[in-house]
Amino acid sequence: MDDIIKIGNRQIISNFISRIYTKKPLFLCVIGNTDTAKIPGISAAGANPNITDYTPAADVEYLHYGECRCIDGVPITPEGIPTPGLITKAAIELTNIPFMVGVGGIHIIPQTPYIYFGGTPGENISNGYAVKNPEIIFKNAMIFGKNLSKMVDYLVIGESIAGGTTTALGVLLSMGYDAKDRISSSLSINPIKKKLKAIDAGMNKSKVCIGDFKDHPFKAIEYFGDPMQPAHAGIIIGAATSIPVILAGGTQMSAILAIINAINPQVLKNIAIGTTSWIIKDKNTDLKGIVEQINPDIPILAANFNFSNMKPQGLQSYEKGVVKEGVGAGGITIASILSSKGKITIEKIQKKLEKDYEALNELYALSFWYG
Amino acid sequence: MDDIIKIGNRQIISNFISRIYTKKPLFLCVIGNTDTAKIPGISAAGANPNITDYTPAADVEYLHYGECRCIDGVPITPEGIPTPGLITKAAIELTNIPFMVGVGGIHIIPQTPYIYFGGTPGENISNGYAVKNPEIIFKNAMIFGKNLSKMVDYLVIGESIAGGTTTALGVLLSMGYDAKDRISSSLSINPIKKKLKAIDAGMNKSKVCIGDFKDHPFKAIEYFGDPMQPAHAGIIIGAATSIPVILAGGTQMSAILAIINAINPQVLKNIAIGTTSWIIKDKNTDLKGIVEQINPDIPILAANFNFSNMKPQGLQSYEKGVVKEGVGAGGITIASILSSKGKITIEKIQKKLEKDYEALNELYALSFWYG
Repeated sequence: MDDIIKIGNRQIISNFISRIYTKKPLFLCVIGNTDTAKIPGISAAGANPNITDYTPAADVEYLHYGECRCIDGVPITPEGIPTPGLITKAAIELTNIPFMVGVGGIHIIPQTPYIYFGGTPGENISNGYAVKNPEIIFKNAMIFGKNLSKMVDYLVIGESIAGGTTTALGVLLSMGYDAKDRISSSLSINPIKKKLKAIDAGMNKSKVCIGDFKDHPFKAIEYFGDPMQPAHAGIIIGAATSIPVILAGGTQMSAILAIINAINPQVLKNIAIGTTSWIIKDKNTDLKGIVEQINPDIPILAANFNFSNMKPQGLQSYEKGVVKEGVGAGGITIASILSSKGKITIEKIQKKLEKDYEALNELYALSFWYG
Repeated sequence: MDDIIKIGNRQIISNFISRIYTKKPLFLCVIGNTDTAKIPGISAAGANPNITDYTPAADVEYLHYGECRCIDGVPITPEGIPTPGLITKAAIELTNIPFMVGVGGIHIIPQTPYIYFGGTPGENISNGYAVKNPEIIFKNAMIFGKNLSKMVDYLVIGESIAGGTTTALGVLLSMGYDAKDRISSSLSINPIKKKLKAIDAGMNKSKVCIGDFKDHPFKAIEYFGDPMQPAHAGIIIGAATSIPVILAGGTQMSAILAIINAINPQVLKNIAIGTTSWIIKDKNTDLKGIVEQINPDIPILAANFNFSNMKPQGLQSYEKGVVKEGVGAGGITIASILSSKGKITIEKIQKKLEKDYEALNELYALSFWYG
């Protein structure tokens, strides 16, 4: 099955896959906002910094309706490359996978049903404070995750939050992980200096040093994280106590793993990361290098996309390293392949994606976006 | 199985039961507030009219934690009789049934995870207007219900909303059903005159006559309903298109049936009402008489409780016709019995309830409440 790249211990990966093969998942997309995304040049999840607030709501609206309601068009990078939510939508539609939206804390409310855990939008971490009451969000989410584990065979849980790789790095550094040169970006050229500057500023203001929050995951979120994280970690711990969970995302998921590892490391045996080949192949990203510091046994699976021959240029550009991952695109693609016994393939998803993109293009004249 | 009273066509009931027997349900409790509950003497879902706003949130907190967070103690009637949520909690705990909270529109937010569909609290129907944007709430709920139908074998859906029998009557009358002398009440002496006075006042102000909204279910909700109703109806239509659904409640569920019948009557074949013996045996309630006007084929099942020999007086009082139903108590009891192949019985649930009540009594000195 060349559609899925496997990184890690072969036996563990094989066991994990056999537990979910042909089984029925639920896809959950947890969204949030952090004002960190409004630092100019730090996020490509939106055509400009101010519109990044709309990206998560727009992403899950697209999953529900095939179009967004809180914005015209679909979320795009400053270059006009569309959201990976298009991949997610293609996969869940082809495989008829049920899905839900979880809200960590958000400025722009999606016009969809959603699950709420009591959180508020995150602040700019460079100001020295990030998320109110992460433990309340976490506990509510954990209850919900526990209930989900009684309903489905396994869970695939993704995210949409602009600025999320910066807050992931903030959490990882404050917990003492060597992640500085390993974190990914939605931009093709990683604005790592801007990210570190924001984290440094926050550390200076809150008088926290690297590693201070090693055993204090909620403090790490409170000062350097975002509101998606405690919701994500809570659902996962609630569910992974009894069923397998795929953390669907890029390096943001390593911060979630670090949080989980500090709260309930036992559940890690039920967890794999599901991501994209763009994350794995990016020379400036080292997801494996972060995960190994947390627990080397955690499998990393990657959907082996190849957009080189995609007709629309907006999709071809993914091969240049823009966007890379988001809205659980990699993980849900893997789940589609495995739950359909391989009937759904990367090729089928890519074909559908091309069609969906063309339909959107007619609707919104996407071509304008990368003019 | 004398634990379940069966009313309706024997063959249809037998078919419905065989479809859910030994199967795995989800219990969903949809909560809402309507200012209609604040009309003095109209609702017993709270020790006094002003506190009825807290009842739904407190009910679902109790389901989650075995104690309430937004109030001290648990919701009680003015006489001190505790919420039927105690029955619901006993049933879902004994049978390990997953559960979720849906919010139609509410003043007091529960300290639990919940699913939100975009609604706001309901107004007092005597003022001539009740619920904003019922169709938006309905559509969001329908999407969610459809996703749930891919995850579980069947759904049990209850409610907690003080004032709900009055808004149910408002909807039924505006849709032209003969329900005036058939609707139930949480009070042992039904304040039917007060209910009709509120509905009359609303009809006068909005210049609507009985039956005007026969084919306009969203108008019926908008002018005479409550925000629980469109969420409830939406989830049911979304789910019952493909899986069985038990509407867990008393005469409020007949208003939901009327709404569903006007939107998508095809799904009624997948629906049964699950209620309590107190509703069935009450001489002033005629659930069957309302349901038959909508569709005579809809099975009515009732959990055959008998609290006469319960040690705590607060529970014994249920036999006097106070409370009768709520928080899905009857329907989830039926689901517990059927999904456990009869291992869980009414007797077992009642025994657990007695224990739970005694634990609460120690915690909160419930005895004060009916002093």
